[in-house]
Amino acid sequence: MTRVDAIDKVTGRAQFTADLVPNPHLVAKVVRSTIASGRVVSIDTSKAERLPGVVGVWTCFDTDLPSYQIYTAGHPWVVDPAHRGDIEDRKILDARVRQYGDNIAAVVAEDSVTADRAVRLIEVEYEEYPIIFDYEDAVNPPAGAPPVHEECPGNVHAEWDTRTDLEGTGYGSIEEIHADPRWHHGSYTMATPRQQQAHIETCLSYCYMEGKRIVCVTSTQIPHIIRHSIGLALEIPWGDVRVIKPCVGGGFGNKQDVLYEPLNAWLCKKVGGRCVLLELTREEVFSCTRSRQPKRFVAEASWDDDMNLVARSCEGYSNSGGYASHGQAIVANGQGSFRYMYSGQEKACYTKALTYYSNQSTAGAMRAYGVPESTWAAECMMSDIAYDMGWDGAEFRLNNAIKLGYSDPFWPAPLVCVSNGLPECVERGKELIGWDEKRRLYADETGPVRHGVGMALLCYKCSVAGLELETASARMLLAEDGSVMLELGATEIGQGCDTVMCQMCADAVGVPFEAVHILSTQDTDVSPYGAGAYASRQTYVTGIAIKKVAAQLREKILAYAAGLIPDGQNLDLVDGQIVGGPDRDHLEPLMGLGELSCIAYYSRTDSQQISAEGTAQTDLNSFCLGACFVEVEVDVPLCKVEVKNVVQVHDSGRIINPATASGQVHGGIAQSVGFGLFEELIEDPATGRTLNDNFLDYKIPTMLDLPDLTAEFVETWDPTGPFGNKSLGEPPAIPAAPAIRDAILDATGVKLYEAPMTPQRLFEGFKEAGLV
Amino acid sequence: MTRVDAIDKVTGRAQFTADLVPNPHLVAKVVRSTIASGRVVSIDTSKAERLPGVVGVWTCFDTDLPSYQIYTAGHPWVVDPAHRGDIEDRKILDARVRQYGDNIAAVVAEDSVTADRAVRLIEVEYEEYPIIFDYEDAVNPPAGAPPVHEECPGNVHAEWDTRTDLEGTGYGSIEEIHADPRWHHGSYTMATPRQQQAHIETCLSYCYMEGKRIVCVTSTQIPHIIRHSIGLALEIPWGDVRVIKPCVGGGFGNKQDVLYEPLNAWLCKKVGGRCVLLELTREEVFSCTRSRQPKRFVAEASWDDDMNLVARSCEGYSNSGGYASHGQAIVANGQGSFRYMYSGQEKACYTKALTYYSNQSTAGAMRAYGVPESTWAAECMMSDIAYDMGWDGAEFRLNNAIKLGYSDPFWPAPLVCVSNGLPECVERGKELIGWDEKRRLYADETGPVRHGVGMALLCYKCSVAGLELETASARMLLAEDGSVMLELGATEIGQGCDTVMCQMCADAVGVPFEAVHILSTQDTDVSPYGAGAYASRQTYVTGIAIKKVAAQLREKILAYAAGLIPDGQNLDLVDGQIVGGPDRDHLEPLMGLGELSCIAYYSRTDSQQISAEGTAQTDLNSFCLGACFVEVEVDVPLCKVEVKNVVQVHDSGRIINPATASGQVHGGIAQSVGFGLFEELIEDPATGRTLNDNFLDYKIPTMLDLPDLTAEFVETWDPTGPFGNKSLGEPPAIPAAPAIRDAILDATGVKLYEAPMTPQRLFEGFKEAGLV
Repeated sequence: MTRVDAIDKVTGRAQFTADLVPNPHLVAKVVRSTIASGRVVSIDTSKAERLPGVVGVWTCFDTDLPSYQIYTAGHPWVVDPAHRGDIEDRKILDARVRQYGDNIAAVVAEDSVTADRAVRLIEVEYEEYPIIFDYEDAVNPPAGAPPVHEECPGNVHAEWDTRTDLEGTGYGSIEEIHADPRWHHGSYTMATPRQQQAHIETCLSYCYMEGKRIVCVTSTQIPHIIRHSIGLALEIPWGDVRVIKPCVGGGFGNKQDVLYEPLNAWLCKKVGGRCVLLELTREEVFSCTRSRQPKRFVAEASWDDDMNLVARSCEGYSNSGGYASHGQAIVANGQGSFRYMYSGQEKACYTKALTYYSNQSTAGAMRAYGVPESTWAAECMMSDIAYDMGWDGAEFRLNNAIKLGYSDPFWPAPLVCVSNGLPECVERGKELIGWDEKRRLYADETGPVRHGVGMALLCYKCSVAGLELETASARMLLAEDGSVMLELGATEIGQGCDTVMCQMCADAVGVPFEAVHILSTQDTDVSPYGAGAYASRQTYVTGIAIKKVAAQLREKILAYAAGLIPDGQNLDLVDGQIVGGPDRDHLEPLMGLGELSCIAYYSRTDSQQISAEGTAQTDLNSFCLGACFVEVEVDVPLCKVEVKNVVQVHDSGRIINPATASGQVHGGIAQSVGFGLFEELIEDPATGRTLNDNFLDYKIPTMLDLPDLTAEFVETWDPTGPFGNKSLGEPPAIPAAPAIRDAILDATGVKLYEAPMTPQRLFEGFKEAGLV
Repeated sequence: MTRVDAIDKVTGRAQFTADLVPNPHLVAKVVRSTIASGRVVSIDTSKAERLPGVVGVWTCFDTDLPSYQIYTAGHPWVVDPAHRGDIEDRKILDARVRQYGDNIAAVVAEDSVTADRAVRLIEVEYEEYPIIFDYEDAVNPPAGAPPVHEECPGNVHAEWDTRTDLEGTGYGSIEEIHADPRWHHGSYTMATPRQQQAHIETCLSYCYMEGKRIVCVTSTQIPHIIRHSIGLALEIPWGDVRVIKPCVGGGFGNKQDVLYEPLNAWLCKKVGGRCVLLELTREEVFSCTRSRQPKRFVAEASWDDDMNLVARSCEGYSNSGGYASHGQAIVANGQGSFRYMYSGQEKACYTKALTYYSNQSTAGAMRAYGVPESTWAAECMMSDIAYDMGWDGAEFRLNNAIKLGYSDPFWPAPLVCVSNGLPECVERGKELIGWDEKRRLYADETGPVRHGVGMALLCYKCSVAGLELETASARMLLAEDGSVMLELGATEIGQGCDTVMCQMCADAVGVPFEAVHILSTQDTDVSPYGAGAYASRQTYVTGIAIKKVAAQLREKILAYAAGLIPDGQNLDLVDGQIVGGPDRDHLEPLMGLGELSCIAYYSRTDSQQISAEGTAQTDLNSFCLGACFVEVEVDVPLCKVEVKNVVQVHDSGRIINPATASGQVHGGIAQSVGFGLFEELIEDPATGRTLNDNFLDYKIPTMLDLPDLTAEFVETWDPTGPFGNKSLGEPPAIPAAPAIRDAILDATGVKLYEAPMTPQRLFEGFKEAGLV
């Protein structure tokens, strides 16, 4: 199906937040710290306040500043404080500076130029502290460096272990296995970068008041969560907050965080409810929103001669920067995937997930939420083992991959592999890339330009059921012409979910696809509840709500039809027609749904606007699987890698819309190529300042950097999915980077452990290997 | 209660249609005929099309012009063609010109100045016909004047009689009564003016496309009706039309008509879905939208010596102008009121309602829908009789007024007087105006400046149940903090309905008033169905839907509470608290509704966003009643009337919000003062052109023209009203004009029959009476 928003988006008609800002409006700018750690001693705002056009300046010393610290991770509220996993460490403005560019004051002015000028007129005096930059600093801080957060004296805000129970297996502990001479062993240290989400639309919101209520129109993935966060941050009833999400130009997890909406709302109250726009520059997006948490991994593996893993260990250290944001959830999620992916043969698996504060910029959620990082670690290991043992990487991986029936011992709800198209994915990928021929063909290259093929697998959960609330609400309203207006809490952020939601609705109600109209704008005043776009959950979870509410709507329609067609038998709704007949196998059209609906609206005896609404909750989950194959050309002297071909094959259950599913895969591959080859936000260890906070210095792959990408699907029918479907939002972003790494190894014999594999790192690797 | 929109409206925050128009947008202007009757022979658009900035010009000769003629009256759709009362006589653009300023073409340009210039560059050639101006012309057209509409050869588009059945009464026919020497008789001819609604906000809309769908944002009273009208006019499925109604700055019936929305939508399609604004100037509003139908009445009355009416007859002739719009419904409604109001004693009543086409500008609905006109007629008669007989007008009127138990013989559904506070209204009004003392005091004035007191009654139905569909839908959504989001089809157009809807919702659900938030903007994509703001029906009809849906919401809340409080007894929801206890008379608070709702949203076992939605239909009706008393000072030589005091007392059942109810009464009095003294759109009989199409030449009363107004209420409890309430929207606009007329008669002895009683008409009356 063509995307329902295709025409509007290609013609420019679609309305994004910036298109909707009313005129006149005020402009807010954040006054940011120019140190990475310390305390604001004083702020002189007098010059700024005297500037004509400045409406006001508010600082971290404002006496009205709410003291409530919120969590900013885009997770649904948890009523029981004992079960709240996210750390409430964020004030609207704070005198304690924890990262370069921290929010210490804000200016509101009549226009953007004045606001910028006012920011520059503000004079701040700091007490500066030494910077905590990395894990070593965090656990052993430099002299005079206080903890990043007083509440967390050791700077490590979470550390979780999982250890497969070895009792009765006869293999001994993980440590004993890793020391056991019966097995081969390897030790590995790996690192992954601070990647930026790099969505096209920057982060922006505008707020105004309606009566005593605050309206926040914002480019977000999580409107309902923004609502409660503004309520908490401003200490006002949540019902006094209305959040509206227009079209969103990408989020990739950055907008699964509460960014500047509470500050914007507070400033709006400060100016008496006038409309205030708070729009970040690209530089602010890069350095003062969120990014993928930079991580280090320390790992070991043991395996036998027969292509079987025996045990793996992996410790993941994640740098959350100055604030927790999504914190530990990310690396824990990644480490879970490390465990599941190659759970096929191994006897034991140990993972550690540790997240620490630093004075780097705050990291948070990014597409695939820790899994690209942990997969990088897992696949570096698989790559090395296969290469060293002379095994076919595909055969080795498939032998050790997750198997049908796998049940995770650590997930708090059933998490079982109930559908598995992975063998077919690998088979198809090998075929498309020409795996066997190319491996033979490129085996003996010795020149300056060498070629290789590589691969990696992926494994990703379909929801967060069990760990967090998984609920979704839907409302359907029948229009006079028999079309169905669909309202959801599930948010379209560019990924195409509106289209598949319409497809599912059409299918479940029994109307043509064209007869479903979806409201793409969420408005917390009226939209059914939805936690938002994250965790690749929307089709999987909201699909359940659509099925449930569609069944209610059908029931009401057929009940009304029964009143109009008293002698109707076996009444049903098929493709927008009420059908019936004495024989279920030969039903005849009796009445168009539009005719029925029009009668229902305007009946003088039984007037009804037929609608249905409801909430569906799930504790189901499943595993998405897939395989990526790449072919590279490596120019050794130039330290240049050209990706010649990428083939990625997914088992995401039944594919609802192949065209948009392919689009998701193409975009995910591109992000993973960036992760593997170029993308890294660099912070200066001396100042904590982001050095490449713009698209000139921070490069993402463009069309010119990518070959033709091939996305294919092995369609399984997952019994847990509402339409046999599994998830597809994030998984595409996982495997290309380690597959490229595997291909470089295949081409050159050089093992790289740090992503991105920049020319510098390639040079170091090639030099160490004696190639240059 | 303070109006829920008070702060936003006084601070200028409230967003009206013009505040929301996106930029950039195109501007449409209508090319209007410069004759009142004829046919467009040709239109030369070439000069206009060459003007830079003109996007396009479309004329009545456009080959794509939809041929479907719609009705424009704001009445719900009727499925059965046999029951459709409104006349489908309107095309988007038409070569047949029926009034001065008729729509013959339209220009779309990049800006308003260019659009205006382009309009002036268009050259039109007409075939001109003689004008049909009034009833005499309509039934006996000038030579060469074809019927205004071919489909209506006699120009009279409707004529209905009602005649009280006299069988068995022994009085003979109406005509026999009027000739019977046992009774006193009087004959009367009266006229009422073309009054303009004079809403502050002009008529405007803008349209854009979302995919293949048309969105129309418009200042209207009837968004759902606009939707189906655009669908019909453009011959597209109604579900492909989305109508949004922002804040509206007054309508008074003019916006209970489909004005320029279909044309705007069609132009939007013509420019490929770009946003097109169509905003009328004040002059266009005055002459090319709608106005109160000008009417003439020919009447007779017979009465006895004992203050009893025996019989009345009244023929009302209504000029609908070039198109039918609301047509006959208006004068028929007025004539009904003529009948009910003084049904107390009389034996027989005959009314005729007749509506005819002319080449005057199209008239339509205006506040109180024909009743001010018919009441003018009825009260002129009552005034004259009381004056001539030397009776106390109050006593005479009350004796003959509608009585408890009156059941109308002509209304197609039960229309019974089941509550009647009229005697108390008259009593209270007399007291407040000082009726008896002032009548004595002013009895013998003979100087140039004289004083008088006068009065009139009013009687108005509460809905159109029986005649038309009366249905309303509502949706309530419980927010996490226990506040209730209320969505209705009922439209706030300035009258204050949002506030009373919130009050009713709070009361019916069991939450504080402050905990109800209403969505004031209707959006046909998501709003519950509502026919719109007209017929004073919203509180009366939508109140039923609120009660019904509130009961559903309460049931769901209490069911959830029962799950959380398993040992709870007699659980109830009172003022936002779940209460319970073993003794129904001593219930204790057990849990706040916010706590319950938050648990429900985020429960890991039973997650529910609690909401309720439904439609309520009614065939109930009742009578609103009231009395107006005025005191005037008449400067006879200057022909100047100063209204010194107005007291209006209403029986509108239980008053939901006295503060806003008083506001309604004040505004209504002002409109009736204008109707009685100054307001009249004047059309030139030679050209059909409106001569006073602006606020310089068409005067409405301002604060300076009005004394302090006193509004009071006699609260009855009406058994048909959802909260004991009756209607109050339109009734206030009915009685002041005839009460002023009565007071002038009291002051001067001069009987005036034509409203408005301008200085010219006063002069003519005074001259005839020998006073000047």
